[in-house]
Amino acid sequence: MSTAPKRLNIHEVATRDGLQNEARFVDTDAKIALVNRLSQCGFAKIEVTSFTSPRAIPALRDAEAVMQQITRVPGVIYTVLVPNVRGAQRAMSCGVDEVNLVMSISESHNRTNLRMTREQSFAQLRDVVSVMRETGVAINVSLSTAMGCPMEGDVPVAKVLGWMRRFADLGVHGITLCDTTGMAFPSQVSDLCRQAIDALPQLELTLHFHNTRGMALANTLAALDAGIDRFDSSLGGLGGCPYAPGATGNVCTEELVHMLDLDGYDTGVDLAAVLDAAALLPDLIGHDVPSQLLKAGHRLDLHPMPAFAADGIPEQRAFAQQGA
Amino acid sequence: MSTAPKRLNIHEVATRDGLQNEARFVDTDAKIALVNRLSQCGFAKIEVTSFTSPRAIPALRDAEAVMQQITRVPGVIYTVLVPNVRGAQRAMSCGVDEVNLVMSISESHNRTNLRMTREQSFAQLRDVVSVMRETGVAINVSLSTAMGCPMEGDVPVAKVLGWMRRFADLGVHGITLCDTTGMAFPSQVSDLCRQAIDALPQLELTLHFHNTRGMALANTLAALDAGIDRFDSSLGGLGGCPYAPGATGNVCTEELVHMLDLDGYDTGVDLAAVLDAAALLPDLIGHDVPSQLLKAGHRLDLHPMPAFAADGIPEQRAFAQQGA
Repeated sequence: MSTAPKRLNIHEVATRDGLQNEARFVDTDAKIALVNRLSQCGFAKIEVTSFTSPRAIPALRDAEAVMQQITRVPGVIYTVLVPNVRGAQRAMSCGVDEVNLVMSISESHNRTNLRMTREQSFAQLRDVVSVMRETGVAINVSLSTAMGCPMEGDVPVAKVLGWMRRFADLGVHGITLCDTTGMAFPSQVSDLCRQAIDALPQLELTLHFHNTRGMALANTLAALDAGIDRFDSSLGGLGGCPYAPGATGNVCTEELVHMLDLDGYDTGVDLAAVLDAAALLPDLIGHDVPSQLLKAGHRLDLHPMPAFAADGIPEQRAFAQQGA
Repeated sequence: MSTAPKRLNIHEVATRDGLQNEARFVDTDAKIALVNRLSQCGFAKIEVTSFTSPRAIPALRDAEAVMQQITRVPGVIYTVLVPNVRGAQRAMSCGVDEVNLVMSISESHNRTNLRMTREQSFAQLRDVVSVMRETGVAINVSLSTAMGCPMEGDVPVAKVLGWMRRFADLGVHGITLCDTTGMAFPSQVSDLCRQAIDALPQLELTLHFHNTRGMALANTLAALDAGIDRFDSSLGGLGGCPYAPGATGNVCTEELVHMLDLDGYDTGVDLAAVLDAAALLPDLIGHDVPSQLLKAGHRLDLHPMPAFAADGIPEQRAFAQQGA
C-alpha cells in the first residue's frame, strides 16, 4: 500500500495568460517582482510572458526585460509563449527553459484568435519546431478549444487526437489541452484524458481549465481520476478569452491548490505564499480578481464567535433562525 | 447494462435560504410569482419560506401569505423551515408537505446562529417532531456545519453521525448535511456520505453545498460518487451565511443542473426555464447574483465569428497571438 501522496505539477500562467488581457500596463519591475514571488511558491513551471509582437499584445511588450531580469529558481521551468520563428529567436536569446506554442483545434477560433487558418498556424509552428530542435529547449503546444469552441460548439475527440498526433510526430515533448472558454464538463474531460493518454503516452499532458461555468475544479477531479498530473492555473483566477463574452478567468491557482492539498495530493506549492501573492493583484491590475478563496480564506481560517454567543445565550432571542 | 440515466432530486432553496439574507424586502406578490415559476421548472422539492419570527427574519415575514397563495404543482414537495412548535403550527395551518428543522453540529455555530445550546435546540426540535408525528407531514432535519465550522474548524464525522442518529431515533424521514460556509472538500464529502449511508440507510439523505471556496460542484461529484441523489441548490447562487465573512452563496441551481445534465444525469429540471427565472433575480433583489452560468450561458450557446475572421484572414495581423 502506497503511503506517499501523489505528486502533481502546477503551472502558474498569470503573468502570461492573465496579464495579457489586462487593460492596465503592469510595470516591468512589478512583473519581475511578481514572477520572483511566484518562483518562491513551489510551482513546477511558470509561464513568464509572451514573445508576441508588442503591437499585438502591448501588455507584454516588455517580454525580454522581464525574462532577462527575473531571478530564476533551480528546478522551476520558465516557459514563454512564442507564436512564430521570430518569437522563438527572441525567447532563445533570453535562455528560456521551454517554449509554448499555441493553436486552436477549431478553425473558427484559430481564425479569430490567431488570424490564420489552422494549416497556416501548423506550418508556422512546424517552422518554430525546426528552429528549436537543435537547441535542446523543450517544446510544449497548447491546443485551444480542445473541449469546445464558442463559435462551433462541440469539438470531436478525434480532432483533438489528430492534432496532438501531428505535433507529437514533429517531436514536441508536451501538449496542453485547453478548455479555452470553460465549455468542458467532467465526464467529457475524463473521456478525453483517457483517450489522449492511451493514444499518445509519450507526451507530457497538461490540462488547462477555465472556470467560466463554475466547473473548473470539478473538471480537475475528473482529469485526476483519468490519470492527469499536470495542471495550468492562474493566480487570483486572472485571465479569460477576449472572444468569449461573459467568460471569467482561468482556474484560480489558490483554489486549485487549496482543494488538491485537502484531497491529499502533493502539489509542492506553498498555499500561504500563493495567497500572499494573490492579495497583491488587485492593486497591481486595478480591479478585483475572481478568486473566492482570497476573500474567504483557507477553510480552517477560523473566525471568533460573536460576543453574544460566546458570553451567554439570550433566551429571548431564541427565535432567530438563520441559514442552513 | 442500464441505459436509463440516474434520476436525481434537486431541491430549490432560493426563496428561503436565499431571500432570508437579502436586505431588500421582496414583495409578497413577487415571491409568489417566483415560487410559481420555480414550480414549473421540474424541481423535486421547493423550500418556499421560513415560519420564524417576523422580528428575527423580517425578509420572510409574509410566510403564511406566500405559502397560502402559491399555485402548487402536483408532484412537487413544498417544504418550509420551522424553528419551533409555534412555527410548525403556522406551517401546518398552510398545509405544507414537509417541515425542515435546523440545528448545527458544532456548538459555537448553533449558539451564534440559533442563540441556543445544541441540547436546547434538540429539545425544541424534539417537541416539534412530537407535535408533527400525528399529522403525517414529512419531517426533514438540516444539520448545519456538518463539514466544518467557521468558529471551531473540523467537525468529526462521528459527531455528525451521532446527531443524525438522534434525529433518526425520533423518526424523522430525512436529513440534509449542510456545508454551511463552504468548508467541505471532495475526499471529505465522499467519506462522510459513505459513512452516513452505511450507518443510517433508512434516512433520505440530501447534500447542501455552498460555493464559498469554489468547490461546490467538485463536492457534488464526490457526493454522487458516494451514492447521493438529493441536492439542495439556490437559484442564481443566492444565499450565504451572515456569520461567515466573505462567504459566497449556496451552490447555484443553474450551474448544478447544467453540469449534471451534461454528465448524463436525469435531474428532471428544465435548465432553460431555470435560467429564465434566474435572470429575474437582479431586478428582484437589487444586485447582481453569483451565478456565472447566467453570464456565460449554456456551453453550447454559440457566438458569431467576428467579421474579420469569417470574411477573410488579414495576413498582416497574423502576429496576434492571444489566449490559450
